Amino acid sequence: MQKKIKKLAIIGVGLIGGSFGLACREKGLAESVWGCSRKKSNLLKAMERGLIDKYTLDLEEAVTDADVVMLALPVDSIIKMGEKIAPFLGENTIVTDAGSAKESIVNSLEKILPNGGRFVGGHPIAGTEQSGPEAAVPGLFRGRHCILTPTKNTDSQAMELLKNLWEETGAMVSCMEPEKHDRLLAVISHLPHMAAYALVNAVAKNEGEFPGIFTYTAGGFKDFSRIASSSPGMWKEICLQNGDAILQAIKGFHASLSEVSDAIKAGDGEKIQQIFTGAKEIRDKL
Amino acid sequence: MQKKIKKLAIIGVGLIGGSFGLACREKGLAESVWGCSRKKSNLLKAMERGLIDKYTLDLEEAVTDADVVMLALPVDSIIKMGEKIAPFLGENTIVTDAGSAKESIVNSLEKILPNGGRFVGGHPIAGTEQSGPEAAVPGLFRGRHCILTPTKNTDSQAMELLKNLWEETGAMVSCMEPEKHDRLLAVISHLPHMAAYALVNAVAKNEGEFPGIFTYTAGGFKDFSRIASSSPGMWKEICLQNGDAILQAIKGFHASLSEVSDAIKAGDGEKIQQIFTGAKEIRDKL
Repeated sequence: MQKKIKKLAIIGVGLIGGSFGLACREKGLAESVWGCSRKKSNLLKAMERGLIDKYTLDLEEAVTDADVVMLALPVDSIIKMGEKIAPFLGENTIVTDAGSAKESIVNSLEKILPNGGRFVGGHPIAGTEQSGPEAAVPGLFRGRHCILTPTKNTDSQAMELLKNLWEETGAMVSCMEPEKHDRLLAVISHLPHMAAYALVNAVAKNEGEFPGIFTYTAGGFKDFSRIASSSPGMWKEICLQNGDAILQAIKGFHASLSEVSDAIKAGDGEKIQQIFTGAKEIRDKL
Repeated sequence: MQKKIKKLAIIGVGLIGGSFGLACREKGLAESVWGCSRKKSNLLKAMERGLIDKYTLDLEEAVTDADVVMLALPVDSIIKMGEKIAPFLGENTIVTDAGSAKESIVNSLEKILPNGGRFVGGHPIAGTEQSGPEAAVPGLFRGRHCILTPTKNTDSQAMELLKNLWEETGAMVSCMEPEKHDRLLAVISHLPHMAAYALVNAVAKNEGEFPGIFTYTAGGFKDFSRIASSSPGMWKEICLQNGDAILQAIKGFHASLSEVSDAIKAGDGEKIQQIFTGAKEIRDKL
């Protein structure tokens, strides 16, 4: 059982930050859960929905005397936020984040923060195409993986506390080097998003010949393309931060697609069926 | 209002055939709805679920004196079935199918059947990854497109009757040349399936480095890959029958993916965001 912390400060009260606050409040993991955001309307929504106990627009007030600061922000804002809060952080404050790309964030924040060893990169794999405090839900992390990315500099006590905190929210915590995390996420999450965006665009290129082409699409296409509704701005930043690993993942996908094309070109029914069966067997186990 | 037909014979009582029978029975469109299959167990299930009124394992009994024969079979079985039933068909029997690739089926059946003009190719765009009579549901076709593919040889009365029949099931009927249908379907349906199978395989290639990689996948991947659960055998046949159009569609998808890669390689955030925003705007309208 996690020892109750006194003050948890969540910067950014959207889907992830809001759901994290909610989980911590429901489990009584902190005496007070503070929310901080540039947008007062988001903080009021988060209060109304019970995601946080207290709110402030002032970063200094938010992080002063906090035991844990969670940076639940888009990946391109996390490092900048680290710079902003650094002057107000105590020596013992643990800082963590929930960004989908870890290497550059971990490298930078270990240097920027006053006690870099008490920064632990984190990433709960629980996003949806929704965002904002209205999207926060209880149990978002239950049964989901949360990857922490400690380095040789990481304070083991900070690491332990965060591990327990995430486990209390119901997440399955695993540890991985930041670079390895980024390659894993490029394959399992970033690639499917790239594929979904590209698929919608590939279909759209046929609109000239087939006006209203999207009205003909059935359930398969709709499911497949749902994640193309995700925030373009957020995904742009993930692409910029994790470009190399994403390019590698896209390359692997091109190769798998070409395997299908080659088999079709050769009219090799056996090979086609073998490719499809392999995929189906994996998918059916999920 | 459709004039009631006397005998409707459905060969193949799976998802599509079964749902068609159910819709026709619910709307009272035929005095009797016969089901025929090689598998007695499927026919009994179809009877039990009220998808058909009568069943037979005998093709001759099924199609004799039928006003309409629906071939609701995998694409590779449709032409062969046409050959089998041809000797038992009356001059006035209308024959149709529900296959996802039309050109080769239409060309062949117009020649094989005793009255080729009374064959009208059809395709309700309403598949799911499910199959079999247990997957049949009422209203499967409601609000969905059904494409009919008449040719210069098609009897206009047969065409009219089928159009009305499909409209009574709730489908939106449109007409298209078989070859055009095949190119449309390659893009909106066959391509997403190829992409889903290829994506699952691309991820699987990383299992060596990341054991249990599929346990890390989140909702996005699961939605995206759902259609990779579709029948490999059925999709193999679609690939063999509609290979050229599918290859063309995959080529277009490679190009859209490369657009994403190129923008990431160039670190061109503006271009990345533009690509994603274009896709999101289209997807959000679906």
